[in-house]
This record gives sequence, C-alpha cells and structure tokens, in this order.
Amino acid sequence: MNAPHTAPHLLPEVHTRAVPAALLEALQARFCAQFSSALVVREQHGRDESAFTVPPPAAVVFAQNTQDVSDAVKLAAQYKVPVIPFGVGSSLEGHLLAVQGGISLDVSRMNQVLAINAEDLTVTVQPGVTRTQLNAAVKSTGLFFPIDPGADATIGGMSATRASGTNAVRYGTMRENVLALEVVTASGEVIRTGTRAKKSSAGYDLTRLMVGSEGTLGIMTEITVKLYPLPESVMAATVSFDSLADAVNTTIQIIQMGVPIARCELLDANTIRMVNAHSKLSLREGAMLLMEFHGSPAGVQEQVETVQAIAAEFGGQTFEWASTPEERTRLWTARHNAYFAGIQSRPGCKAITTDTCVPISHLADALLDSVTEAQASGLTYFLVGHVGDGNFHVGYLIDPDKPEERVLAEKLNHQLVHRALKLGGTCTGEHGVGLHKMDFLVTETGAGAVSMMRVIKQALDPDNILNPGKIFKL
Amino acid sequence: MNAPHTAPHLLPEVHTRAVPAALLEALQARFCAQFSSALVVREQHGRDESAFTVPPPAAVVFAQNTQDVSDAVKLAAQYKVPVIPFGVGSSLEGHLLAVQGGISLDVSRMNQVLAINAEDLTVTVQPGVTRTQLNAAVKSTGLFFPIDPGADATIGGMSATRASGTNAVRYGTMRENVLALEVVTASGEVIRTGTRAKKSSAGYDLTRLMVGSEGTLGIMTEITVKLYPLPESVMAATVSFDSLADAVNTTIQIIQMGVPIARCELLDANTIRMVNAHSKLSLREGAMLLMEFHGSPAGVQEQVETVQAIAAEFGGQTFEWASTPEERTRLWTARHNAYFAGIQSRPGCKAITTDTCVPISHLADALLDSVTEAQASGLTYFLVGHVGDGNFHVGYLIDPDKPEERVLAEKLNHQLVHRALKLGGTCTGEHGVGLHKMDFLVTETGAGAVSMMRVIKQALDPDNILNPGKIFKL
Repeated sequence: MNAPHTAPHLLPEVHTRAVPAALLEALQARFCAQFSSALVVREQHGRDESAFTVPPPAAVVFAQNTQDVSDAVKLAAQYKVPVIPFGVGSSLEGHLLAVQGGISLDVSRMNQVLAINAEDLTVTVQPGVTRTQLNAAVKSTGLFFPIDPGADATIGGMSATRASGTNAVRYGTMRENVLALEVVTASGEVIRTGTRAKKSSAGYDLTRLMVGSEGTLGIMTEITVKLYPLPESVMAATVSFDSLADAVNTTIQIIQMGVPIARCELLDANTIRMVNAHSKLSLREGAMLLMEFHGSPAGVQEQVETVQAIAAEFGGQTFEWASTPEERTRLWTARHNAYFAGIQSRPGCKAITTDTCVPISHLADALLDSVTEAQASGLTYFLVGHVGDGNFHVGYLIDPDKPEERVLAEKLNHQLVHRALKLGGTCTGEHGVGLHKMDFLVTETGAGAVSMMRVIKQALDPDNILNPGKIFKL
Repeated sequence: MNAPHTAPHLLPEVHTRAVPAALLEALQARFCAQFSSALVVREQHGRDESAFTVPPPAAVVFAQNTQDVSDAVKLAAQYKVPVIPFGVGSSLEGHLLAVQGGISLDVSRMNQVLAINAEDLTVTVQPGVTRTQLNAAVKSTGLFFPIDPGADATIGGMSATRASGTNAVRYGTMRENVLALEVVTASGEVIRTGTRAKKSSAGYDLTRLMVGSEGTLGIMTEITVKLYPLPESVMAATVSFDSLADAVNTTIQIIQMGVPIARCELLDANTIRMVNAHSKLSLREGAMLLMEFHGSPAGVQEQVETVQAIAAEFGGQTFEWASTPEERTRLWTARHNAYFAGIQSRPGCKAITTDTCVPISHLADALLDSVTEAQASGLTYFLVGHVGDGNFHVGYLIDPDKPEERVLAEKLNHQLVHRALKLGGTCTGEHGVGLHKMDFLVTETGAGAVSMMRVIKQALDPDNILNPGKIFKL
C-alpha cells in the first residue's frame, strides 16, 4: 500500500480487492509463459503517463487472440476480480492504474492488421496495433489513418478513450472513425457491433457506446476504422504572432469561415522558449500557429490564400511554408517536441495536463484567462492546443515531492475546467475521464446523466470487474 | 383488436396493455385541452408510413414543453403504461404504432428554434421542429442543416431513427450531426447529454446511444445539431446510362477516387418510367444518376471534371448540368417525385420498402441481383438509391388486400437483406428497425449484441414503457 494520502481529494482512492491464489494458479495453468506475476512486469503495467502512483496489479496476462481475452475475463469473472486492459501505457488520466487491484490484460501482442479493404476505405485491426504500425501497413494502398494522439498509442487504447489529435479538425475523432468492433463482455462472451457499411440505423449504437468507455464496458478485440485517400497536395505553414490573443482570434476566424483546414495547432511564447532550449532552435519567441492544408493543388492554394489574409489582419509574421514531407517535418518540429520539451524543462517533474474543449467562439475566453492564471501562479507550465477544435492542453509541471505544488496545479486546473464548462465546453476533449476528472464529469453533464452511465455499467458488468473505479464512482 | 393475423411472422405482434381509467383521468386533469381521447385523433396517431395496421393508442397528449413531457411520462410510469413519442408520423417502419397500447405523446407543438449559434455552427431546437423549418430559421446566417430524409420529418424523429438522406455522402447522418441532447428518461427525469464542444471524451457517449434508439430509451426534448456554411458554389448534374450496372459502377469509382461529392442518387429505368408518367416528363428511360457538387468554384470544377471522365468510361450520356437553384430543382424533379410516382403508379397500394446499406465495393453485387429478382417477381417496384453511401431502397408495391403479394414482397425483401448482410452490410441504412426488421437485426449483429441492447433497455426502462415492442423482442 502507498503512504497515506495527504490530499485525498487530489489523489485516487485505492481499495484493492483480494486476488485469490486459486485465480492466479488457474491463470498460470491456462496461460503459462503468457502469464507473469513478477514485480517488474506488474510495476510496468501499474503506471501510465498520469501523475498518480498506486500499487501495481497482482499479475499480468499477455493475450494473443480473442480467445485468450475471453478466457482471462471468464476466469476473473469467476472470482469477481478486476481486469484492466493495457496497450502501450500511454494514458494520461490513470486509466491503467489498478486502483481496485486485479489483473492487467496486456493486448499489445494482439498486433495483427487483419483486413485492409482499400476499395471501401476501411481496415480491421487487433487492438494492440499502434497508429504508426497501421499507417505503415496501409501505406502502399495510397490511404492513411489520420487520428494521431501525441503518443504512438494503440488503436485499442485510442478507441477506449475516444482519442483524437492534430488531424481531427478535418477528419474527426475516434467517435467518427470507428465503424465496427468485436468486444469481449464482462462475462467473457464475444459480441460484434456495427458493420463495414458507411451508415446504419440498426438498433442501439453499441459501437459508439464502447468507444470512449475506457475499458469499463467491454474489452475490444477487433476494431474496424475508416481510412482516407492520401491528399494529392499537402502544404504546412507556421506563423508567429505578437500576442496569444492574435493567434487565437486568427484560429477562430479560420474555423468560422469554414476553411477545411486539416491541422491548426498553437504553442504559446513560453512553450516556444522550452522548445528552443530543448531542440536548439531559434524560433521567434511569440505565439505560434502551426497549420496544414490537405486537398487538390487548387484547393490547397485557395485555403492558403484565405488563411494568409486572416493571419495578416491579426499581425501574423514570419510565415514559413513547406510542401515536401521533409520540410513539413522540420517545420512541425516545435509541435512534435513540445510535450517532451515541456517535461524536460523541469527535470524530475510530473505534468498535470488539462484537456478542455469549448465551442470555437469561446476559445479566446477559455484560453487567455487560463494562461494568465498559469503565468501568475509561478508554476512552470506549457501550452499546446488543437485550437482548430477549440481544444487545448496546459501542462502544469509539478515536483511530485512537493504536495503544495500539486495543490496549486489542481487549483489552476479546477479554475480552467470550470471556466470551460461555463462556456458550454467539456472537461476532456480527447484524454478521457479516468481517475482525474470524475468530479468534473458530474459538473459538466449533471448527476442525472452520470447516474444513467452508472446504471448502464451495472447492467453490463454487475460485478464491476472491467477497469473498475474509472469515469465515475459506483 | 384487429382481425386475427393470417401471417403472424409478417405482421407485428399486438399485445395491448390495459390503460387504467385513472391514468386517463389524471392526464385529462393535467393536460386539459392538450389531451384527447377522440377516436379520430387517436387514429391519426396510430399509423405511419409503414404497411402495418394496428389499433390506435388509448389517448394522445400534446406536449408543449419539457415539463409536459416529464409529467406525462411520470404519470404513465406510475401506471406502467406505454408512451410513444410522435412527431409528424413519417416513420416507415411502424415506430409509431401502439403495438402494446398506451399513450401517444405528440411533440409537434414543441417546435421552437431555441438558440442559433452561428459563430459555432450549431443550433439547438425542440424535437418538433421540422428540417425545412430549421433551414428557414437559419437561412439568414449563411448556414444550413444538410440532413434530408424524404419526408419533412422532425429533428426529433430524425434523431430517434438516426436518419440521413441525400446529403449524407458528404455531411454524414444524424449520428455525426447531433452534438447534445436534453432527454426525459423512463422515470420522467430530465437529463442532459453532450455539450456544444466539437469533440469530447467525457464518459459514455449517451448522445449517440439515444440517437437511433427509436424512442425506447428516452424522449428527446432538446436537440443540438451541427450546421454548415452554404457552399460558395453548387453544381447539379444528371446522367443517363444504358445499364444499371454502368450507373452503379460509375458511383463506386467516384467514391473510391475520394471525390467529395455532396449527393449521388440513382433511379432505375423502371422508376424513370413511373416519374415520366407521374410528372409528365420525357426523361430518357435508362438508369439515371443525379449528383450534386459543393465547394469553391474551382473545387466544384475539379469534381465535375473527374466525374465526367468516370461516367464517360461507363457510357454515360445526356449529361445535364445546372448551377442556379431553380435549374437544380428542375433537374432533381425526378428524384424528388420518385417515391410518390412509385406509390401512385399503383392506386391503393402500400409500399414495403427495403433499406440495406453495404460497403461501396459490394454495391453492384447487392443491388443488381436484387433488382433482377424484383423484375422477375412480377410485383410492381421502384428503386431509389443513396448510392454514394452504398444505400438503396426497393419499394415493393403491394395490394394490402392480397396477402400473397405481401408474402411475395417479404420473400424478396428477405433475399435482398440476407444478400446485403453476407456482403458486410446492414439491414437498415437510415429508416431504423421498428417493427419490421427485428429478425434481420439479430442476423446482422448476432444474438450477443442484441442481448446487450436488451440489457441496456431493461436497465434504463425496467417497466418497458418507452415505445415498447420496437427494435427487439423483450
């Protein structure tokens, strides 16, 4: 057990359930070398990218196929022991932490691309396939999968958290891009949801109920997602502004004009300084927008002209353009390195990361005051934003050994989230609720809706064995 | 009660529950002039556009606001009596029929446009607002709402059936376009789901669980949907083909090339004949594609050139083009009139309409054999297709007094659906399951998924009062 929590409202509640020796023996017998109770393996499966530390799971099962998942869940169900699906461990919200003990079910070896249906723009994969692996597998078809959270996450993890990333402005999130699923339920039964048809009115939308359910309603074992033709023409651009407000207002106008921009990302001057230090660059220390345009050559040209005119109105300067893949990668270096530049700007720190998303007209209201508060607090922070979607992340960098810093960061987080909710936004655009946003979820959607979620959870998982203790308290 | 069913597997099971006089009195007292038990009103609320006839509901309540809906549901819940939400009665699948008796809850007077947020491309409406009313209300903003089922349905009904229409190729269906809801639950409680933010990972996707649930999980009382900028340029086109296969293969190639076409509709030669007779036109009696392109002038021009080249490969002829709204309306007359031209080609008939949707690469396989079978059967039929989505409707026109015609039509329907399911498709692209596709749903998604739907229904509506007897048997 951890040391007693000094600030229990800021740290997850841990109520470890007993894992009977008989279950561990049964799992060992069934899974042999695919089973481990070694401390190092358990610890590796007992943490993620969140700022929380809780005791690791009692054992880890490495599933290789749907039958493995089903058998593991059936055994766990028999003993009413929690099962926590695990991909590559890139969750930011404590989704993978064994707050009620139990078994980690690692699906990273379920990494087969099962069917590429290029003529229908769909692909079916196992949950352990990562997004870069998927894109490598479909590259020869001239198609690509656009959803790109910061980490090279698994398609299973991305589906479970309803992830998005930089391309969502144009291509949507996992909500819009998952067509069909195979799912193992809390009883170990294997069901299918959805089809490869583009649209359907066939009963309850179980696919979208599972997407974003954070492993609490079922474990995905096959996932069919949409693919898109690689754009004929791609143009990337960066532009620097004297003030954060100018960069935000440029973004708002781009979206309101209906420009079909593919990516529109923001870094503030503070984060640019961190990136310059980390990557030995000399970018202008102002707020920077990073953009990408996809389409036909003529279509891209139209978008570029519109955006240039808008940025000029707000004093945008030092525009840089890139059309080849190599140049684009160079231009986007600042964005790609922002998270790590932020983390490494304070050695030994942990990041408490916000994830609000607001209607685009309220982006300035939501973002500017929150950044002012972060600056005034004295805490080190970074700011990256998928601002084309109205979504941005402030990362407060805290010393995990200084509880007062966690308290301060959570206070800033609280103010930021409540501001976004008042503006008609959501507490999480893409990371999920996990352990960290349960209270925010109630404020956002109301006790009635959370109660409905709870009723669904209890009906589908009566013994509360699927990733218990996440999203809401039962 | 109806006459005994001669073909029970083809007609809905009717198990009327008793409606206590005390409930009718309580509703009368609460709703006064908003309550009616007059036979003519009940009968008007006891039918829809399906080919079924069942006894009407025991009474009708005309709700004017959320409180009315909540109070009506609470009274019905107290007596465990069914409540069936009703908009304009345009369902094609028997959704509105009182197969278990109960109360019809008419929401057509809840027809206020509550908030137009043009700067965020969203609008919030009451459920009784129709799609043409919505478009009229937002016209001055330069925005539009693209979802357009054949009827001038309500946004509530369209949300409940996950409707789409001709623009779904480019703009998606109600699944992609509903952002947030206010819902009255089976206990009469009012809850909210979703926000106006473009994306969210905040817990279970209750919005999309409600969308397409056909009034069985809750009654929507406020609906927030996306709007889109009116395209700068719109071009419409029709093109005729010697064979149905050529028209279908042209469609497949347009979609596979990634042309961002807004609409791509198909009529077969048989249906063109019906339209010519109905509207006194002299269209070429071949398979016809009707298309529309949205975008910038240059973007539309690019699309047009690509599509012309593809159609030419398949022998497309008598291309007609239109760019002004009046010309476009004229050009699309055939499509707009197809359903009524079909129905009126056989006076007194009822239509049994199919609604399969398949992955685009299988469209030819799904469609051509089904049309051949319809032709060989001797039944009158029409064919209209949202083929850009892989979705098409065959309407079998039966004499309701000849049971053998219904049996034949259902046999053809059965063959058509099972063919689509084998090809990875769905039994319903946009109409919903209702009474008519319950068995198909089980074949399509499997007993496991339907069982999960049932568990959710029982958890959220334990007394089975919300539109009972639809989607699946309990």
